Amino acid sequence: MNEIPHWLEKQNDLQPTKVAIEYGEHQSISYSELREESRKLAKGLMKKGVKSGDHVAILSGSRIEFPVCVHALSYVGAVIVCLNMRLSPEELAFQLTDADVTWFIVDPEFVEKGHKAMQSTTLNEDHIVTMDRLPKAEDSIYLNDHLCLDDVFTMMYTSGTTGKPKAVMHTYGNHWFSAVASALNLGLSASDKWLVCLPLFHIGGFSILMKNVIYGMPIRMLDRFDAKVINNGIRHHGVTIVSVVTVMLQRLMKDLQENSYPASFRCVLLGGGPVPKPLLHKASEKSIPVFQTYGMTETSSQIVTLSPSEALRKLGSAGKALAPATLKIFVDGRIAKPYETGEIHVKGPMVSSGYYKKGHQEAEYLATGDAGYLDEEGFLYVVDRVKDMIISGGENIYPAEVESVLIGIEGVEEVAVTGMVDDEWGEVPAAFIVKKEGTDISFEKMATYCRDHLAPYKIPKQLFIISQLPRNASNKIVRRKLFQSVEGEQGHGH
Amino acid sequence: MNEIPHWLEKQNDLQPTKVAIEYGEHQSISYSELREESRKLAKGLMKKGVKSGDHVAILSGSRIEFPVCVHALSYVGAVIVCLNMRLSPEELAFQLTDADVTWFIVDPEFVEKGHKAMQSTTLNEDHIVTMDRLPKAEDSIYLNDHLCLDDVFTMMYTSGTTGKPKAVMHTYGNHWFSAVASALNLGLSASDKWLVCLPLFHIGGFSILMKNVIYGMPIRMLDRFDAKVINNGIRHHGVTIVSVVTVMLQRLMKDLQENSYPASFRCVLLGGGPVPKPLLHKASEKSIPVFQTYGMTETSSQIVTLSPSEALRKLGSAGKALAPATLKIFVDGRIAKPYETGEIHVKGPMVSSGYYKKGHQEAEYLATGDAGYLDEEGFLYVVDRVKDMIISGGENIYPAEVESVLIGIEGVEEVAVTGMVDDEWGEVPAAFIVKKEGTDISFEKMATYCRDHLAPYKIPKQLFIISQLPRNASNKIVRRKLFQSVEGEQGHGH
Repeated sequence: MNEIPHWLEKQNDLQPTKVAIEYGEHQSISYSELREESRKLAKGLMKKGVKSGDHVAILSGSRIEFPVCVHALSYVGAVIVCLNMRLSPEELAFQLTDADVTWFIVDPEFVEKGHKAMQSTTLNEDHIVTMDRLPKAEDSIYLNDHLCLDDVFTMMYTSGTTGKPKAVMHTYGNHWFSAVASALNLGLSASDKWLVCLPLFHIGGFSILMKNVIYGMPIRMLDRFDAKVINNGIRHHGVTIVSVVTVMLQRLMKDLQENSYPASFRCVLLGGGPVPKPLLHKASEKSIPVFQTYGMTETSSQIVTLSPSEALRKLGSAGKALAPATLKIFVDGRIAKPYETGEIHVKGPMVSSGYYKKGHQEAEYLATGDAGYLDEEGFLYVVDRVKDMIISGGENIYPAEVESVLIGIEGVEEVAVTGMVDDEWGEVPAAFIVKKEGTDISFEKMATYCRDHLAPYKIPKQLFIISQLPRNASNKIVRRKLFQSVEGEQGHGH
Repeated sequence: MNEIPHWLEKQNDLQPTKVAIEYGEHQSISYSELREESRKLAKGLMKKGVKSGDHVAILSGSRIEFPVCVHALSYVGAVIVCLNMRLSPEELAFQLTDADVTWFIVDPEFVEKGHKAMQSTTLNEDHIVTMDRLPKAEDSIYLNDHLCLDDVFTMMYTSGTTGKPKAVMHTYGNHWFSAVASALNLGLSASDKWLVCLPLFHIGGFSILMKNVIYGMPIRMLDRFDAKVINNGIRHHGVTIVSVVTVMLQRLMKDLQENSYPASFRCVLLGGGPVPKPLLHKASEKSIPVFQTYGMTETSSQIVTLSPSEALRKLGSAGKALAPATLKIFVDGRIAKPYETGEIHVKGPMVSSGYYKKGHQEAEYLATGDAGYLDEEGFLYVVDRVKDMIISGGENIYPAEVESVLIGIEGVEEVAVTGMVDDEWGEVPAAFIVKKEGTDISFEKMATYCRDHLAPYKIPKQLFIISQLPRNASNKIVRRKLFQSVEGEQGHGH
């Protein structure tokens, strides 16, 4: 029961001439062409020496060769190591070595970076393949016609806002169950088209490549985020679903101005962290169908989603665990009461069985490291990273809660909150704000605003106006580096 | 990766107040009520002595207690043995004994039959539970909150048109993959409602109970086939999908007369054997969205379906194997060429791992016993049972092909074809026809009609007009009993 037909073989059987991927200016590739290209590459790679079980790294932007390489490697039975193109050569070298990579496929745009990274590894020129010179062959070589759900297919390093990154292993089954869980939640229509503007090397983008072949649903692939191009896709090119993170949705709405989306556009899947309530309200006013989701690399993308019918009644919630998944909140080893914040634990067939070389996930439930609570109806509210919690005079303060208030202050472009040492309270919250151009924000203005929305102990005791927030290669704010970004900039407080 | 949350627990979590099942005149039960009833029954059964792993038979018509019992037994972890209510006490006794049944749940309507059957088994009064007196309890007893996909959940005897029936075992995973495969094929919408008029003890009806809790999709349950009631459900009660067999579709269309179905009605899933082409043409003329399917108990219902977009272009085909399944035609141990008829073999996670006490299915592919061929695009055409093939002067004749022609003759109500011994050709086809009232059919009329549609060797050499066709408890025609039904009736031929 743990084998399914190779998903691209199947789509080629079911709907060979259907467009699989739209990309570039006006280009597209059908399922039969995608299969053909992937199979030729699989054979080319095998002739070069790539074998089943080999670890093959991909360092690439969102170009059509990315999915072709992904499917080629599944025909070979090799394990894909997805590399983040924003990493430094040193960081790449760590991952190439840690993941025991023996082959390295590189986007021409990153050839220099790739070579630099390779120099600190045991890889050499023979092991690197650039995407503009992919080896193709048409020999009669056996390729996988089935996929074993228990086999590891991909490894992705968690972005690691603290500590060394670890490689999350995903089996074919993890990806399959994730795609199916999403379909059971969002429904599935023959007219669906999913736009992908998230990086393909992250689970958020990669999971759409999987839905493309598991559902047989066309996708529209962009090589970068461009609000104008995306809005055009939604308004004029039949896009029905788009996955974005908060900042992207903000930009889409800004670009949309007074225009609206067609009724056939049925879902903005919004993930990647806590979402400010004002943004959700604004989207709701514009009738934009926003589905908040919660997920991570370890859960093969979304595992909790707010269902369409509850989107307004439970504004700010990430929803409930998808059909094949379970969710529990633990506090001090016991299950939390409603509204009690604790660590979110998840279980389900889309949850990774562990990190490469770190041993298998032994616990029944995966501890996510995220803090959250359930309301009396069991809806999840994600509060923050457990590690980022500030303890102030015995009270727990989650930075994201404070941030979601601060973002409502006029003139605030971006905001981050972290704890600072305080003689009296142990820790107190400090606010870091990037201002909109031409505005001014004083400590007093901030504190006054907060008094209407937050308990006194949650109000930041210091305000730092900075020019930009420190982010990692996955574009996530690194709170522990906030104070370093203040150097030379001025702090205000009392 | 082989565990999922108990599906009814999950639906109760996701949409407790949503109607799960509509039944009776105007009755309905929500997911939370269905859960509550099922849990109370589970606890009542456990207090009575039913344990995880016990084999519990259900002998029942399509009443609301049926799904309640099904879910209760999944909470207990017991294995359900689905009994056909049309079986004789003797046949029931065989299945109760063969399946090692230790508990017996009986519809009040079949209490007498159930007791008669029990007398030839080791079961006694303590082991029988009637559905009008189901034990319910509210004690604090542990019930399964997860389901293991590898655990056996149901056993159903194959209708066995030849030989002793065998119990097909289905795991939770078989049912889960079957439901998901269907959703990937047909799509899934929040407004879907599936009408079930097939017996629940057969896989065709049972699989809809599974979709009910796996998708969280409401179903409308009828206790018997009634064309008027079904057409009313489709036209006025939001039914979007219905599963039927050929004769049911004929009656639905007859009752529909000049009326039509609403646009929201999106699928007639038509299974249960070869379908006469004139019926498909007629349905197409009336814009009825018929999806032909092919499946059997061993494949947990449909495994091959003709996709919407191909329904007209490939009239008469059963389509292609669903996404997680594979299909091959074998002739003499080799893979058949296009249009070459051979035995249909299938593989996939919805395929049963074997028959109870008959050892596991060892072969990679399940040999279905059905004959069929693929066209040059890989679409399946089911021809007939391999065993029913007639060999006439070295030519293979499949009765179903001949029947599909004969049904087109004016005045023919029902038809069956089988082989009869012939000195010259070894075997020749013989036709058995049930006439419509007030019509007359001569051998010459039949033969003349056939000459336009069939090769000479396929034209029946004898015609028998009979009053009804011999059918088994599953309502399938038993061709080997055709000649017995002729006794006292007249044969015509040359």
